[in-house]
Amino acid sequence: MLVRSVDQISQDNVEQEGAEGVKIRWLISKYAGAPNFAMREFEIEPEGHTPYHSHDWEHEVFVLSGEGVVVSEGEQISISRDTVVFVPGGQMHNFRNTGSGVLRFLCLVPHKKD
Amino acid sequence: MLVRSVDQISQDNVEQEGAEGVKIRWLISKYAGAPNFAMREFEIEPEGHTPYHSHDWEHEVFVLSGEGVVVSEGEQISISRDTVVFVPGGQMHNFRNTGSGVLRFLCLVPHKKD
Repeated sequence: MLVRSVDQISQDNVEQEGAEGVKIRWLISKYAGAPNFAMREFEIEPEGHTPYHSHDWEHEVFVLSGEGVVVSEGEQISISRDTVVFVPGGQMHNFRNTGSGVLRFLCLVPHKKD
Repeated sequence: MLVRSVDQISQDNVEQEGAEGVKIRWLISKYAGAPNFAMREFEIEPEGHTPYHSHDWEHEVFVLSGEGVVVSEGEQISISRDTVVFVPGGQMHNFRNTGSGVLRFLCLVPHKKD
């Protein structure tokens, strides 16, 4: 069993093209022994956003704090604490902070197939 | 894309033997189209607990609020907001509320293989 507080886990800037003001922590990953999927925490600064992109895998998202929108093909939906988002694989999407504080959420993904 | 607030999702009592004062919401499930794993929210009343048991699949847990402990083979570790817990498959475990308020956490599991 592995038990840690979030602040014990290192945080990195997301350098991916199209990301602005985004930080990530890999809370539970394959390197922690997780066999199937990974739990990540994202923090987005005010006016920041993740890349608008798509990929083959799904996202399972839970918003912890802050105010923002999730943008997808023709849709823009407000998100805040306790919002749950499922983004299927293959769908364009991004997350944008529209508030004055940090937008913080969990985003879980299946492990990439090697 | 599916976007909902937690309070829009139905909550059920956990009737499983060994569970006391436990409620569950299936936030994202295979019925919502998730192909690989499910996101559930648990609420445990003061003095309540989940069953002390083991199973083949893992848990990926994130504590949202409250105070409690996670108990495993010979270990009892305090948990509170922003605690991350990984319980590997095959390990005995339960979650106990030791505080005066509700203990609330996310617990994600892979879909059962049919």
